[in-house]
Amino acid sequence: MAVVFADRMQSLRASEIREILKITQRPEVISFAGGLPAPEVFPVAELQQVMARVLQEAGSRALQYSTTEGLEDLRRLITARLGSKLAVHVDFDDILITQGSQQALDLAGRLFLDKGSIVLCESPTYLAAISAFKAYQPQFVEVPTDEAGMDIGELEKILRTTAGVRLIYIIPDFQNPTGRTWSLERRRQFARLVGEYEIPVVEDNAYGELRFEGDHLPAVKASDPKGLITFVSTFSKTMCPGMRLGWLAAAPQLLEKYVLLKQGMDLHTSSLNQWAVAKFLELYDYDAHIQKIIQIYKSRRDVMIAALEEYFPPAARFTRPQGGLFTWVELPGQINAVELLRQSLALDVAFVPGDSFFPNGGVTNTLRLNYSNMPPERIREGIRRLATAIDHYPGRRRDLAGYTPSTFPPKCHIP
Amino acid sequence: MAVVFADRMQSLRASEIREILKITQRPEVISFAGGLPAPEVFPVAELQQVMARVLQEAGSRALQYSTTEGLEDLRRLITARLGSKLAVHVDFDDILITQGSQQALDLAGRLFLDKGSIVLCESPTYLAAISAFKAYQPQFVEVPTDEAGMDIGELEKILRTTAGVRLIYIIPDFQNPTGRTWSLERRRQFARLVGEYEIPVVEDNAYGELRFEGDHLPAVKASDPKGLITFVSTFSKTMCPGMRLGWLAAAPQLLEKYVLLKQGMDLHTSSLNQWAVAKFLELYDYDAHIQKIIQIYKSRRDVMIAALEEYFPPAARFTRPQGGLFTWVELPGQINAVELLRQSLALDVAFVPGDSFFPNGGVTNTLRLNYSNMPPERIREGIRRLATAIDHYPGRRRDLAGYTPSTFPPKCHIP
Repeated sequence: MAVVFADRMQSLRASEIREILKITQRPEVISFAGGLPAPEVFPVAELQQVMARVLQEAGSRALQYSTTEGLEDLRRLITARLGSKLAVHVDFDDILITQGSQQALDLAGRLFLDKGSIVLCESPTYLAAISAFKAYQPQFVEVPTDEAGMDIGELEKILRTTAGVRLIYIIPDFQNPTGRTWSLERRRQFARLVGEYEIPVVEDNAYGELRFEGDHLPAVKASDPKGLITFVSTFSKTMCPGMRLGWLAAAPQLLEKYVLLKQGMDLHTSSLNQWAVAKFLELYDYDAHIQKIIQIYKSRRDVMIAALEEYFPPAARFTRPQGGLFTWVELPGQINAVELLRQSLALDVAFVPGDSFFPNGGVTNTLRLNYSNMPPERIREGIRRLATAIDHYPGRRRDLAGYTPSTFPPKCHIP
Repeated sequence: MAVVFADRMQSLRASEIREILKITQRPEVISFAGGLPAPEVFPVAELQQVMARVLQEAGSRALQYSTTEGLEDLRRLITARLGSKLAVHVDFDDILITQGSQQALDLAGRLFLDKGSIVLCESPTYLAAISAFKAYQPQFVEVPTDEAGMDIGELEKILRTTAGVRLIYIIPDFQNPTGRTWSLERRRQFARLVGEYEIPVVEDNAYGELRFEGDHLPAVKASDPKGLITFVSTFSKTMCPGMRLGWLAAAPQLLEKYVLLKQGMDLHTSSLNQWAVAKFLELYDYDAHIQKIIQIYKSRRDVMIAALEEYFPPAARFTRPQGGLFTWVELPGQINAVELLRQSLALDVAFVPGDSFFPNGGVTNTLRLNYSNMPPERIREGIRRLATAIDHYPGRRRDLAGYTPSTFPPKCHIP
């Protein structure tokens, strides 16, 4: 005999983001590659207070095994916030606390996907969701997406003509990687359609609280009479990622299955961290804290957009997100973003080539830029250098004149 | 269309332990059911110090995303301890920090098991390992086990005659559920045999540090020239479970795959908790702390064994563990432990019927008793009541005379 790995291992390979992050840990690199929140807004002093209080008041209870579902206090606080901010009205026991929202994605894959099952997603979509689902060996069908969200006509066509659709994965708010937000109309059309076809949905709302301007829109989950939608979110972007606290909200018939699965995966999420975040929400003004984050990210977005306008060639197109952590750039078609990355790394600038965000690949001229993790002067300098790399891209000057962007919206057309 | 769940959901059902724990949360219940460590030995004050220090010194670094592998300092501390305590000599980058040891089991299932793959395990074996592996839909083949560990002759016969063995799962130290420890001879024979057949092994060492008497034996992993053994352990039993910190040690060619899988599952384990435990190990005397736990558990084991000797019928057989958290009782064959549980719950005493620990079921007259989580007077009283329930078991007095224990060692024969 000999060592045999599971069949699923054939479809997994090291993430491009991960390999890049290794390169970009040198301090001189200006990295637009990660999705890291700004560490200067982590509530370090507050968490110090909170940990002291929790260990004093709850003591060993905060250090013992706890239920798989999670701490009831925390689940109640999350429920209240979902109702007030996103028009999602659920009961506290519809909430399962997860090991970051990444685990919620893994759970959804485990609940719904067999080898060959079809997952629909936006094109492009979140890289780590692709990784999470890939462990279950599905086929990805990418649904065309524009500046207002998923193309509902195309979605309907796919649902009408495709057998074996098990799950639809969407990020309607400040999408990773594009920064786009679905319009209210699209949300309604989408909810109606999945209700009609009765397809389970994962709505990933990791960034929804980080809106810089405009009004909060109701989550798609706000209209889910059949209990099809698993709503996924996290404290990673509004408090800190290092405690690994996310959650999902789902109808009871799904939640009991998620709980059963999570129990076999890791028993439960850190009790201590759950107590700490619940205490933080009790003692401090979470809204005020999030406002601080928003002010910083908004100014960084402004700096990045201004620098893109100033330095990037006119043929480049990019989104102007109303919130979240990312903008998305489409370059003239002859520029290969992976090749560009090699050149920009020589200038100590990193980003993620967009190809990684298309589960079936094939789009080579896009990039994702993160603006949350760099001070403004570094953002400006990094974009300037990246523009230099583009200007020196082999053969670029030759072909650029004839370039017309495809379905991508014109520069800055979102207010 | 309609909601379709993954095929694997058919083989999963709610854990018996979990349902029982729900019943036994009433404070008046004397519960031998859980595997909970004694909360009075959690280092609450020390962790308060440690959290304050970490947040002061590392600040936002302890709250940011970190690498999937885990904090290098912590991995180095674990490596040193593995070498000094268990003769397991690995490099720090052979260590992956996991969300409790439960996640390490899930990872091993994900790496090695396809639907129908064969997993070999001790008979009986750890309930939550069965749950973890079941998500990958393997077949379990139980290897007969006696007081010295797995029956190596039987193991060899199975390996010689069975195609498709992908993984062997073992708990050589203070096994859950039996409390048994493999002899040195069995460890050597086992290591030789799996090396010959080249079968991957998961060695679960959750309890190894908690030895009450006798000498520490080298881990099976101590002799693993072909890099087949994934060694799994945890801080749950020696510090506290609520931080969910475990780890696995594996050869580089396995570790890189585990890392890739974990990345898709939850990105990484809580950075803050990793910093905290590393700081604890730096500031405090971990050996002295473990000695405190050992003293308490040893005295509780003594009380439980004495009470079993005093109150249980002579035909009952039970292990006398040299460490860990559990003893294992075999009752006369006509007593069904699930039925007995119903009766003992009426007397406010809980335990786990042993059937749950046999992946293929069929053994109805055994029980697992936990002694770590109850003060001595409650242990004594609980065993007295449990004996009462046995005495009143329907039809028992009628059949008991003709009962002969099967392969089970006589009462207290260890040591």
